[in-house]
Amino acid sequence: MKKKSRFLQTPIEPFAVEAGLSAEQVLARMERISFQGRNLATAHHVWQKMLQDDVTIFLGMAGALSAGGLRMVVAHLILDRYVDCLVSTGANLYHDLHETRGQHHYLGSPHADDAALAEDRIDRVYDTYASEEEFISNDNWIADFAATLESRPYTTREFLHLLGGHLWNTTKREGILTAAYRARVPIFCPAIADSSIGMGLSQARQKTPGKGYIDIIGDIVESANLVIRRPRTASVVLGGGTPKNFINQASVQAEFYSDEVGGHRYALQIVTDVPQFGGASGSSLEEAQSWGKLATDSAKVSVQADATIALPLLVSALTTTSSALAGGRKKPIFTLAERVMTIDGQTVPYERFEEVNERAV
Amino acid sequence: MKKKSRFLQTPIEPFAVEAGLSAEQVLARMERISFQGRNLATAHHVWQKMLQDDVTIFLGMAGALSAGGLRMVVAHLILDRYVDCLVSTGANLYHDLHETRGQHHYLGSPHADDAALAEDRIDRVYDTYASEEEFISNDNWIADFAATLESRPYTTREFLHLLGGHLWNTTKREGILTAAYRARVPIFCPAIADSSIGMGLSQARQKTPGKGYIDIIGDIVESANLVIRRPRTASVVLGGGTPKNFINQASVQAEFYSDEVGGHRYALQIVTDVPQFGGASGSSLEEAQSWGKLATDSAKVSVQADATIALPLLVSALTTTSSALAGGRKKPIFTLAERVMTIDGQTVPYERFEEVNERAV
Amino acid sequence: MKKKSRFLQTPIEPFAVEAGLSAEQVLARMERISFQGRNLATAHHVWQKMLQDDVTIFLGMAGALSAGGLRMVVAHLILDRYVDCLVSTGANLYHDLHETRGQHHYLGSPHADDAALAEDRIDRVYDTYASEEEFISNDNWIADFAATLESRPYTTREFLHLLGGHLWNTTKREGILTAAYRARVPIFCPAIADSSIGMGLSQARQKTPGKGYIDIIGDIVESANLVIRRPRTASVVLGGGTPKNFINQASVQAEFYSDEVGGHRYALQIVTDVPQFGGASGSSLEEAQSWGKLATDSAKVSVQADATIALPLLVSALTTTSSALAGGRKKPIFTLAERVMTIDGQTVPYERFEEVNERAV
Amino acid sequence: MKKKSRFLQTPIEPFAVEAGLSAEQVLARMERISFQGRNLATAHHVWQKMLQDDVTIFLGMAGALSAGGLRMVVAHLILDRYVDCLVSTGANLYHDLHETRGQHHYLGSPHADDAALAEDRIDRVYDTYASEEEFISNDNWIADFAATLESRPYTTREFLHLLGGHLWNTTKREGILTAAYRARVPIFCPAIADSSIGMGLSQARQKTPGKGYIDIIGDIVESANLVIRRPRTASVVLGGGTPKNFINQASVQAEFYSDEVGGHRYALQIVTDVPQFGGASGSSLEEAQSWGKLATDSAKVSVQADATIALPLLVSALTTTSSALAGGRKKPIFTLAERVMTIDGQTVPYERFEEVNERAV
Repeated sequence: MKKKSRFLQTPIEPFAVEAGLSAEQVLARMERISFQGRNLATAHHVWQKMLQDDVTIFLGMAGALSAGGLRMVVAHLILDRYVDCLVSTGANLYHDLHETRGQHHYLGSPHADDAALAEDRIDRVYDTYASEEEFISNDNWIADFAATLESRPYTTREFLHLLGGHLWNTTKREGILTAAYRARVPIFCPAIADSSIGMGLSQARQKTPGKGYIDIIGDIVESANLVIRRPRTASVVLGGGTPKNFINQASVQAEFYSDEVGGHRYALQIVTDVPQFGGASGSSLEEAQSWGKLATDSAKVSVQADATIALPLLVSALTTTSSALAGGRKKPIFTLAERVMTIDGQTVPYERFEEVNERAV
Repeated sequence: MKKKSRFLQTPIEPFAVEAGLSAEQVLARMERISFQGRNLATAHHVWQKMLQDDVTIFLGMAGALSAGGLRMVVAHLILDRYVDCLVSTGANLYHDLHETRGQHHYLGSPHADDAALAEDRIDRVYDTYASEEEFISNDNWIADFAATLESRPYTTREFLHLLGGHLWNTTKREGILTAAYRARVPIFCPAIADSSIGMGLSQARQKTPGKGYIDIIGDIVESANLVIRRPRTASVVLGGGTPKNFINQASVQAEFYSDEVGGHRYALQIVTDVPQFGGASGSSLEEAQSWGKLATDSAKVSVQADATIALPLLVSALTTTSSALAGGRKKPIFTLAERVMTIDGQTVPYERFEEVNERAV
Repeated sequence: MKKKSRFLQTPIEPFAVEAGLSAEQVLARMERISFQGRNLATAHHVWQKMLQDDVTIFLGMAGALSAGGLRMVVAHLILDRYVDCLVSTGANLYHDLHETRGQHHYLGSPHADDAALAEDRIDRVYDTYASEEEFISNDNWIADFAATLESRPYTTREFLHLLGGHLWNTTKREGILTAAYRARVPIFCPAIADSSIGMGLSQARQKTPGKGYIDIIGDIVESANLVIRRPRTASVVLGGGTPKNFINQASVQAEFYSDEVGGHRYALQIVTDVPQFGGASGSSLEEAQSWGKLATDSAKVSVQADATIALPLLVSALTTTSSALAGGRKKPIFTLAERVMTIDGQTVPYERFEEVNERAV
Repeated sequence: MKKKSRFLQTPIEPFAVEAGLSAEQVLARMERISFQGRNLATAHHVWQKMLQDDVTIFLGMAGALSAGGLRMVVAHLILDRYVDCLVSTGANLYHDLHETRGQHHYLGSPHADDAALAEDRIDRVYDTYASEEEFISNDNWIADFAATLESRPYTTREFLHLLGGHLWNTTKREGILTAAYRARVPIFCPAIADSSIGMGLSQARQKTPGKGYIDIIGDIVESANLVIRRPRTASVVLGGGTPKNFINQASVQAEFYSDEVGGHRYALQIVTDVPQFGGASGSSLEEAQSWGKLATDSAKVSVQADATIALPLLVSALTTTSSALAGGRKKPIFTLAERVMTIDGQTVPYERFEEVNERAV
């Protein structure tokens, strides 16, 4: 009898429908199907491996996930330390603040009459609405807070930690910013100038000259120093955008100053963009390996899907299978309330790169 | 105090993560988020409404769903009569037959060396492999069966029912074709000539002159007569393609001959294509209303997602919430083993359209 | 000095803007840019190579290209023999017939009120409208013509040639069907049952019992025999769908019966679908090599673009650079008006595959 | 005779192929076809209208357009003042600088062995390669230059003008940065921290403490003040990303302080993302109207296409038809070399918003 090809090893196992399946059972039965379903099941495994290893897990977040109803998923990931550091667009943090302040986004229609919405001062995000007046109130709230800070540049990491603290103290409500504040998880927002948080900061200057200065280059230095301090890293990316590249950049930048850095050990991305047009959001994880952003032997998976479908299923499964892993893992410990942050007791400068990687004793 | 805009009615309710959620709980918590997650939760409701109403439910199936591990989901939908009539590409039926005959598709990689695969005679479908030799054995099996039939044209509906019966009798294994045979659910395959089932039929001519004739136009007549006989219809479409249009065409064609037909009352599609390029696969359900394919007051939802992610979650939820609905609904009853099929005791001609819609007494 | 990497051979040459550039100059300046622009420029070269070689060039056409204003581009490619055989969806041929009969499609809006359109009986294709009444008149015209044919099954190839002839004799207008008739280029329509041409054929049965029979399996045999007769082939695919697979299937089927067949020597596709979801429309040309649809050393290029942008530019350039090539190439010569077609004087049976490849003497 | 529907006004006019067509003739013949081809032809008209009106034209640029061979197209648009202000990702400016310094990107393959590339220190952007060593040399060059500046925060607008000047003085070569310097067109880079230019700035701190500070919030104030000073604006967006939102944000922010601002009068975007997933890059121009980013009566068009195909054709046509328009238009005149920029002789503060809109006398 003819030898079976080496390529035919593991049969596809058709998804078996059954009443009463749990989220993680659904995902487990997707492991041996094909295409993006298989990739989503693989994402569960890759994330579990991250949690079992001693790595700093970065979470990148782009797209309208907060307005779109995923902010408490991200807050959960932060509070229970499935991740260690958040890199976000400004909009996601702003829309989170909007709801934490007790306001809402609303169900809407993608076929709305936008002129009618404009007349009512309703802002549309595809099938979701929000009140422009409430947005203006947020801008003012941010501006007022920023005006109370010292007249010096703040990294987004420092500013957002303080903002989260103020939000928590004012509202005692759950959300991304307040979870990150309470769990002492740093947030970086490299494109803060391209968001309503940036607009709030710009308005702080109007209220009080000398306020509303952000040290965005300090964020680059800090994020690279985080990697220098703790060279084993992992990346979870939702939606691409500036967070995806910023997380990779930290790794690339850190390599200039430390031989121990070798790209992320694990990478998982859930994106809707495709690689064929050359944009960074849709770029493949294989491509990332050419840059050294990702170790060539890393565990990795890319899921081509809208996060509003993929993430609820994935995180429901993950929280069921892996809460003990998340609780028991070697999490980096941060202090974030000062101008200079620390990780595991070591300083993480924003003014210079750490050229010698001194391990904490 | 200012009146709230009429546009701001129902707040987004962020997805709340919890350990141990079931599939239908995950989907229920996606109802008030945004984007495609919300659409998938809506799809669950639209399908439930179909099951509660007295409608004939068509299921369209394109893309490599059978090879990709979803054939038992479709078999389940047929056996438990969540749908009444399947319209499929030939490939999905062929890959189903391939596995029902005891063979497999295999886990593979999208980055494979295709020259090496070609040398081993392994056929790749993105990240999934199959043996060309086993495919040739299927072709022969189909050709041998087709050569046993009468020397006359068969509609795909008649041929596929007989093929399903032969497959069931030979294997006693579950699958799409055998489920449709056992549940007496008709299958139409308008593009059978563009598939390996068509290739098998063409090889029947080689074996026995006069065999392997398909009456594809008869399928048009039959499918329209189905709608004339039972004018209230619903459409569930996976992946677009010829099945999507054929289901709509049945409705449009039936309207020429019966005033009682008015487009589908419910429509649900899970597609990856978008409308912007004008193709039918990605066309919107709104557009379908201009054609009368869909009633202007129909319940409808379009989910932009890979079926390998969306369908396992959706059908796991549906089977949990709605098995009683599926069991208790007014299902059309078919006979399929003859040249002229019947529905609810009435003939469904393939040679002429029923111009008078005589209700069964 | 350090040796330059072997990977850095040919620099990107930025596109240089200049007033008065011709289409082929624009395309030539895109040869050394990146992404899909480069691919489109490469497509020009691949097509030129096809024209210089002794190959049968298949053109596949899916998506609403005729309604969308590209039918005269396709007619031009046929008349001037840039291609030798067309495989099309039914809709493209139907919309071509619609305009050749002196009717129009109309500029519309994707944001139209579809209920209002439905009331006026206007059918929408994204941003394009047509009159349902005119469509019904076409259906009747096709039915009337089909009712004049013999009471026997016709391959789509035979039927469409006769239809094209009738259309030419009636209208003397240019279009795809009339160009193919006049240039004696065969057209296959494997999914004819999923189109208004199929609907017209089904209505022929209503007019005259015994009419409107199509031998779709005969098309499979004929198309494979074409490849057996002339084993060197090339494939140009617009939009995927059934034409893409049917063209490949002819090659795969032919290989069963002839050792001289080895997959297309050239392949060019312009598609909007992507491979990541496993569907055939978006499948890569690399994947096609695993199946033997495409020779492993073939020249090939895939352009990810809407054909309404890519094709006008590409064919404008091609017709400027390559009309002499198209005129001077070794074109296969067909007779199409009979039940059995011929190529270069040899019969192309529809009832059996040619197992011995007898070269024309 | 029945009245023709009001929806059927302007017939589709099929694209007519002809040898020797110029780029603008190709585009003109696409005006009355459908889908994205029609949209690209419309884009030509919308841009022409911008040039004829008294508006400030913002150009946003995301995706790997510079690496991908379009930097000289953008340089041309700047030098000949088809646009007045560039908002770019950092990567596009960095890759422009890379080539202006005499280095190259290289033709590569999307199927490359990324481990082999990593070993050779070659960075891949889909099908395009670059040398990591040359990138490091750029970083140093930027760091060295930044270290020569004053020890104070610079807006990206000020920094990039000075960088462009240094680049021009050093190289005398054409490119985006040097064109903007020479034509005195401001460049904003809101996500500079997410790019290698940001990395270069961070390394300036290592060289000289106190250097490498960017005032990203100042960019928000300046860009809004530009709109307050000159409230009639237009937006041309390539690829979405932070530039798309930043341009819109300037308009929204300006409206807080001036009643004369009412959203862009013209908007044109060429994007590959779609709206269905809620992200800003793919968001529709209709949606932008709900926010007031775009006037409800604006002329607008969205083209779903890869810019590497659409832009060469569009700009080749535009430069042929509209160089006189571009030369003769009322262009805003900037001074950019100081900490406070001016437009048409009026200051554009970075520290406070102009609450009264004083017209230049």
